[in-house]
Order: sequence, then structure tokens, then C-alpha cells
Amino acid sequence: MTSFTLTEIVSQLGGELRGDGDTTIERVASLANAKAGQIAFCAHSKYFVLLESCQASAVIVNAQSADICKIPQIITDNPYAYFAKLSALVNPTPALVPGVSSHATVDLTVNIPASCVVMAGAIIGKNVLIGNYVVIGANCVVGDNVSIGDNSVLDAHVTVYANVQIGARCHFSSGVVIGADGFGYAEEKNSHNNSSYWVKIPQVGRVVIGDDVDIGANTTIDCGALDDTVIESGVKLDNLVQIGHNCHIGAHTVIAGCVGIAGSAIVGKHCKIGGAAMILGHLTIVDGVTISPGTMITRSIKQADTYTALMPFQRHDDWLKTAAQVRKLNELTDRIKLLERALNNPKD
Amino acid sequence: MTSFTLTEIVSQLGGELRGDGDTTIERVASLANAKAGQIAFCAHSKYFVLLESCQASAVIVNAQSADICKIPQIITDNPYAYFAKLSALVNPTPALVPGVSSHATVDLTVNIPASCVVMAGAIIGKNVLIGNYVVIGANCVVGDNVSIGDNSVLDAHVTVYANVQIGARCHFSSGVVIGADGFGYAEEKNSHNNSSYWVKIPQVGRVVIGDDVDIGANTTIDCGALDDTVIESGVKLDNLVQIGHNCHIGAHTVIAGCVGIAGSAIVGKHCKIGGAAMILGHLTIVDGVTISPGTMITRSIKQADTYTALMPFQRHDDWLKTAAQVRKLNELTDRIKLLERALNNPKD
Amino acid sequence: MTSFTLTEIVSQLGGELRGDGDTTIERVASLANAKAGQIAFCAHSKYFVLLESCQASAVIVNAQSADICKIPQIITDNPYAYFAKLSALVNPTPALVPGVSSHATVDLTVNIPASCVVMAGAIIGKNVLIGNYVVIGANCVVGDNVSIGDNSVLDAHVTVYANVQIGARCHFSSGVVIGADGFGYAEEKNSHNNSSYWVKIPQVGRVVIGDDVDIGANTTIDCGALDDTVIESGVKLDNLVQIGHNCHIGAHTVIAGCVGIAGSAIVGKHCKIGGAAMILGHLTIVDGVTISPGTMITRSIKQADTYTALMPFQRHDDWLKTAAQVRKLNELTDRIKLLERALNNPKD
Repeated sequence: MTSFTLTEIVSQLGGELRGDGDTTIERVASLANAKAGQIAFCAHSKYFVLLESCQASAVIVNAQSADICKIPQIITDNPYAYFAKLSALVNPTPALVPGVSSHATVDLTVNIPASCVVMAGAIIGKNVLIGNYVVIGANCVVGDNVSIGDNSVLDAHVTVYANVQIGARCHFSSGVVIGADGFGYAEEKNSHNNSSYWVKIPQVGRVVIGDDVDIGANTTIDCGALDDTVIESGVKLDNLVQIGHNCHIGAHTVIAGCVGIAGSAIVGKHCKIGGAAMILGHLTIVDGVTISPGTMITRSIKQADTYTALMPFQRHDDWLKTAAQVRKLNELTDRIKLLERALNNPKD
Repeated sequence: MTSFTLTEIVSQLGGELRGDGDTTIERVASLANAKAGQIAFCAHSKYFVLLESCQASAVIVNAQSADICKIPQIITDNPYAYFAKLSALVNPTPALVPGVSSHATVDLTVNIPASCVVMAGAIIGKNVLIGNYVVIGANCVVGDNVSIGDNSVLDAHVTVYANVQIGARCHFSSGVVIGADGFGYAEEKNSHNNSSYWVKIPQVGRVVIGDDVDIGANTTIDCGALDDTVIESGVKLDNLVQIGHNCHIGAHTVIAGCVGIAGSAIVGKHCKIGGAAMILGHLTIVDGVTISPGTMITRSIKQADTYTALMPFQRHDDWLKTAAQVRKLNELTDRIKLLERALNNPKD
Repeated sequence: MTSFTLTEIVSQLGGELRGDGDTTIERVASLANAKAGQIAFCAHSKYFVLLESCQASAVIVNAQSADICKIPQIITDNPYAYFAKLSALVNPTPALVPGVSSHATVDLTVNIPASCVVMAGAIIGKNVLIGNYVVIGANCVVGDNVSIGDNSVLDAHVTVYANVQIGARCHFSSGVVIGADGFGYAEEKNSHNNSSYWVKIPQVGRVVIGDDVDIGANTTIDCGALDDTVIESGVKLDNLVQIGHNCHIGAHTVIAGCVGIAGSAIVGKHCKIGGAAMILGHLTIVDGVTISPGTMITRSIKQADTYTALMPFQRHDDWLKTAAQVRKLNELTDRIKLLERALNNPKD
């Protein structure tokens, strides 16, 4: 197990040390569960109660939270981000032995740098460009002409269609599918009867993904119809997210699980989209917008703010009444109008 | 790059040519972005502004839009469908070399026609019937007794369970799972205490899929419990759609991303189901119904129309007030009743 | 085809036989479709009409439904659960030949019991512990240090990340991803400008899954951030469900398709969660709660009951009016207040 003294941690990650710098840390833990040899963090005054009784060997706090507990402390502006970096330090990614598995199938046109790992069952197509320290997981399929930047990692069972461009330091979880055909069909009448059928619009655009993009398990991003689908640098997508063709997701936007974004939607930078939210197609959402979980966005949003649409949940019997009255809102409004008229013309 | 003159295009796809038939087209593009050597289309008067300033070498228009711009034109009743067919002409699917990869695992009982492609890592079970010009992508798994019609394409990482029937000219994107067990359990009491557990109902039906069915990435279609799950010809499913056991989806119905259809729902032909809509089980929806995105259908629909259920989204602060009042609709109605009574009996 | 007499069935599964015990049953079927040689069940009085005209060779009924039809009957307290067990009897899972495919890649540290099946393309990492009668489907990927209990089955294309613990008699459908990184990032400011970026929180917890857990196609369960994500015994998950990091799902809870449960939510035992429902993170839901389909749960639930939140669907034109009035609920309330004031102070 890797362990660090507080002095070593502060010298690597910054922050101000209070207390014994020789205190040894082996693991990160939560305020509630941390024990000797572990370090926790406190980022908010609502956790002061936990902080006071914390059993950790040290804590990461901000200036406002300093000296609430008696144990050694690292003081920093952003305890949560500090904790994230420290957790990466004490939980290093298991080192993989570089090399191409004899059970992988790599096209002869492809040069795999010696620093890369290509695992068993991975299949890599023609003219694929692979940067240094790239990991291609077990049973991945990488199509022709794909490029993958330095230090990017594809977990097992990732599918990357032909021509997709992937930046550096990306991480795709298992089951991710990048670059499948977008959903585009033109309705055509049968000449001989009144019925119709669907003619597929060839989807000839690519998916272009920036640097530091993380994509969660079983998430799908379709290729563009004519132009490209674009995911800018720093975007983080959770599991089971659907990004339609020709979407453009701005840098550092985070999208939680089960979100669907329909084709040609443009989402700004630094947006936060809650789980199971939906964004209709051909909309534009400016930078810095927050969309609450479960909210369907049906129009463009021109002003940074938080937007919500949810029926409040109730006991089922109460909801039945609410639902009945939602359907009667027209009638309610009419009754109010009649009352207003009667009051204004009491002799009617 | 493939290129065609307008005369060649009209001779293959029909339509009326106006202007220089020797104009050469190399690519399809959007009205806004098209350049020399490219062709765009205009299907709606709201794009006339773009049409007037279009930089394409030619455009596809209908009779109402003819002669708005000065460049060569192809006139047709349905410019969008024409564009789709033309795009397929200028963007032919890359030719694959027929044959079975030495890295595929094909059961000895299976005859793969010489016109087919079976890619590396594909695994094909016993007694599978495969038509001509079928493509089985990398790492696909095809179970025993499956049949796949002529010209159908399975992209990489598709799973087809045993006994599934697939028609001709189908296209399944990566991550599609066809024929997994439906979700059926009977609740059983423990004899020795008050608790209960779930007994699985064996799912012994098949999935039967017609011709020209497209299925998007990571979409799942469960096998039937006793009878079959049926997807009729011409159905198009987007990504991350869930079709429960014993559903029956009528011909030429289109279903957008993130839709869930619960078990035993019967959806008519030529329906259009918007993204993230949900249809409860054991319902019947007639032909030609449109369901708006995000809408939960809780009862059968007997009349072709468009149906919607959505909370309108608002700034979060406004929504908080709306939500509070939705919960108070009962009280509001009571207050209106009291007002009505007071007005009718002013002396009370 | 396996066939059983009613006497044989009752001797194996219990229940009271009425009628000819030599009646032979080859197949289970629905009341509406059953024919000679088949057996159906009736669990509810609303199906008595079907029961009266049923063409099956026998039926499974409860005491209240006995003697409604003249055909041989098995009488039991829970006809649906009895039917489930009988269906398993007449539809035995196809026997697989034990053994490890020569196209599988199994690490040398792993001992595969002779009773197990490991199919082609499966990849099994270091120090994996595999119980007896386990099936690892085609192209599955099982990470280092995973343990899988007796009789568990992974269908094709399942991904199990390193360190995941799986109990006995579990069944995972294709496309399932267990143990991918949870979605956790800390926001960090750039020191040189006003912008921010996301620092990944390492996800070092495991997923721990009990016995008799079924997981549907393309469902994802993330590993914990610090502590484990826990799925207790008897839980049944449908397709395309997302379970966030550090969730704890209580025993025998059933979760229908397309449900999302955000990180650190605690769901009790014996809950029933309808399709496309969503549960926000860091909530606690007590045992025995039912959540209706499509319902977003935004607060903890402390009392067992059924909870619902849905806009009722309407014809689109009607909904447009409803939506407009939902936005005006504030105004409606104000108008009612004015009316009340005017009535109480008629001279104002």
C-alpha cells in the first residue's frame, strides 16, 4: 500500500499544513467513516458536526473550517478538488504492462507505440492513429481511420466507428458506442397506394471529441448527418446518455445519467445537465446553464440560469386528484372569469 | 471521389432538370454550407432566404420553390426524400471484402454464403441461417437457430440471442441486444415467514423482426414470455430504446431515442414516438398516432392524433412556485367553490 | 419435447389436483391461446370469461376460481407463481456442454471448475474466483479479482470490472456493465483566468451483488467512490437501468426498464419501481415503497405507500392550453385572492 506523510502531500499538492507533518496517510475516506491512517475532507459548514468527531488522522479543510477539530489539517481554498487530487495520489491506477495481446487483431497499417496496451479481443481497423500511453481494452472495436490521442483509455467493450477523432486523456467506460449512424429518415409516399415508408439519410459526418472527455458506460454518441458531431474538451458524460447527430457540446459541460439530447442541439460551455433531463433538437443553450434532473427543454435558452420542469411527486391518491384538476385547469379559469364578471356587475 | 452530372442523377433518380445538365456534383451539403461541386435541398418555404443565397452548384426543390435561385435545379415532389437517395448515391457504403475472418468463430453447422462478410471476433452459433450479402460485424454474437435475411448488416458488438428471426435489409447499430429475457416474475410468499421473493417466469417466446428495420446503438428488444415480440417491416428505432416482451410494433413506425415501451404494448403502424416518451404495458395504440417527446402514455389510444404530456419548463424559482401550486390545486378548487356559493347566496 | 402428467406435476410442485391425473402437458400457454396439450393459469376474477372458454388441457387456479371450467385443474394459493415454476419445468434451460472454449482467454491464475462453461471470446482476468456451474457467455470480459458464485450466468457481452463481487444464481443479460467508474468530479478554478475545469474523483469502491440477482440488458451499475455500491439478494433489474455509485438497493426490490437511480441513494427492501422512474441522489427510501412509472423522486420517502408524479397526457391542442395555465397558476391564485377580498369587503 502506498503511504504519504502530510509533509510529502503538501509538497506535491500545495496547501497549508497545520499539525504534525510526519502524520502518515494510507487512504482517503469520508468524514463519517475515516479512521487512523486515513484523511477526509470538509467542504461545507453543514458537515462541521462530522468534522468535530472525525476519527481520521488528518483532514482537508478551508480557512473557514480550520481548527474546528484538533487533528492535523491541510488548509486549501477548494478542499473537494484537493481531496480528488490526493485520492488520485494514494489510489494510483494499476500499472498495465505495455504491449499488444496476441489475442488482439490489429490491422497491418497501424503502428501501436510501445507505451500502449492493446488487450485481448480488441480489434483495430485500417489506418488508425494511436498516441502514446493509449489503452485499448478487451474486446474493443476501433474502426478504420480513427485517431486516439495520448493517454486516452478505452475500457473493455467500447465501440468506435470509422473516422471518429478522439483527443488526449479521454476515458470511455465499457459499452460506449461512438459514431453510429444518426437517426435521419425522409418520408416517401408509395406511388401505387396511399402508404408511406422511410428513406434513410446517409450519415456521413464524423464525431470529433476533444481532450479530457470522460464518457460513461453504455452512452451513445451518433455521427453527424453531413457535418460533424462535436464534443469539446473537458466534457464529462455519465452512463446511458444519448447524444444525437450534429450535436455540439461545449467545453467542460457535465451531463448526468440517462440524459437524451436530440439531433443538432447546441449546448454551451460549463453547463450542468441533471439526470434524465432531455433536450429537444435544433435548440441552442447558452454557456453556464443548469438544467434540473428530469426536465425537458423544449425551446432555446438564451440566459444562464437554472431551469426546471417537474411534476411534484405525491402519494398516489393525492396525485390522482391533482391530475384530474390539471386536466380541468381550463374549466377552473373559466369559473374564475365568471366570478370576476359577477363581482364587477353584481346585478347581472 | 464519386461524382455525377445532374443529367446522370436525373436519369437515375427521376425529377425535372432545370439548368446545365453537365453540372458536376461530388457531395451533398446543407443549404447554408454548400459550396461549388455540392448540391443542397430546400423542402420548406422557411428556408427560402437560405435558398436565395445558396452557394451550391445545384439545388433540389419542389415546384413551389423553383426559380427562387438562379443555379441549376432538380424539381421533385419530395426534395428531402430525393436528397436522401442522392446522398446514398454519392456516399456509397464502403465496399467490404466478402469472406469470413480467420478470427471469427462460426459453428460447423452454419453455411455462410460467399457474398457475406463475417468480421474478426464474431461468434455464430448452431444452425444459424444467413442470407446473401449479410454483414456480421466485429465481436458480434449470434445465438443458435437465428435467421438473418439478405443484405442485413449487424455493426460491431451486436448481440442476437437464440431463435431470433431477422428479415432482409435490416441494420443494427453497435451494442444492440435482441432477444434477452423479458422482465417477468411472480411474487411468492415464503412459507416460514411473512416475506416474499420473486419467481422468474421463463421467457420462451422469440423476437421476430421484419424487413428494412433499423435499430440504433444500445437499444434492447426482449424476447416474448410465451408468444413472440414482433417488430414489423420498415420500423426505425433510435438509440437506447427499450422494447419489452411481447410488444408488437406496427410497420413503418419510428421511435426516437431513450423511449421505453413496456411489455405487451401494441403500437400501430406509421406511428411517430418522440424521444424519451414512455408507453405503459398492455396498451393498444392505433395506427398513425404521434406521441410527443417526454410524454408518458398511460392508457390505450383509439384515435389517430398527436398526444402530449409535459410540464412546461421555467426558471427554477418560478417553477418552485408552480410546483407548490400544483400541489394546492385541490385547495384552489375548494376556494373557487366557496366563492361561487358566496356569490349565489350573498347573505350567507 | 418434455411432457408431464398432471400427477407428475403435482407430485413435484404441490397443489391439489382435480380431474384426470393422466392428462399430459407439453407446454404452458396463456388462457386466451392455450390448446390441447397445454396448461394455462388464472390468477384474477377479471379473466373468468377467458377461463370459461379456455381450450387448454388443464388450468392452474386458486380456490376461488375452481370449477369455473370443466377441464382438469390444479388448485393452489398462488397460480401465477405455480405457473412460473411449471414453466421452468417444461422449458428447461438448454443443457450446455461444460468446458472452456479454445477461443476464450483465461488468465493462468484462474481455476475454472469442470462444471462451468466459458464460451468463445470470453476474457477472464487475474485471480478471478468462479463457483460451480457458472456460465460465462461469448465475448464477456471479467476483470481481475472478480468473484462469481455458484450457478450464476453471464450472457454474451457482459462486462464485469475488476474487484466486483457476484453471488450465486445471478443472471446478467447481454450488454450489462458492472463496476465502471461512478460519476464524480470536483470543480476547480484555473488559477490564471476565471474559468473552471473538472477534477476526477477516483472511484475506488467495489460493486457487491448478492444472490439471485437478475440484471437486464445494457443496464449499468457503477462502482462506489470510497465505499461499495451494494445490490442485495433477490433484486431484479430490467433493461437500460442506471444505478449510480454508492447506491444500496435492498433485497427483493424490483426495478423496471429505463430507471435511473443517482449516486448514494438508499432504496429499501421489497420496493417496486416503475419504468422510467428516477430517484435523485443521497435519498433514503424505506422498505415496501412503490414508485409509479415515470415518476421523479426528489426527497426521501419515510412511509411505505405508492408515490406518483405524472402530467396526464392529452390531445396536443388540449395540452397546449393546460401548459399555458400551469405557467399561470400564480396569476390564477392571485385572482382568487382578489375575489375573496372583494367578497369579504364588498364596498372596497
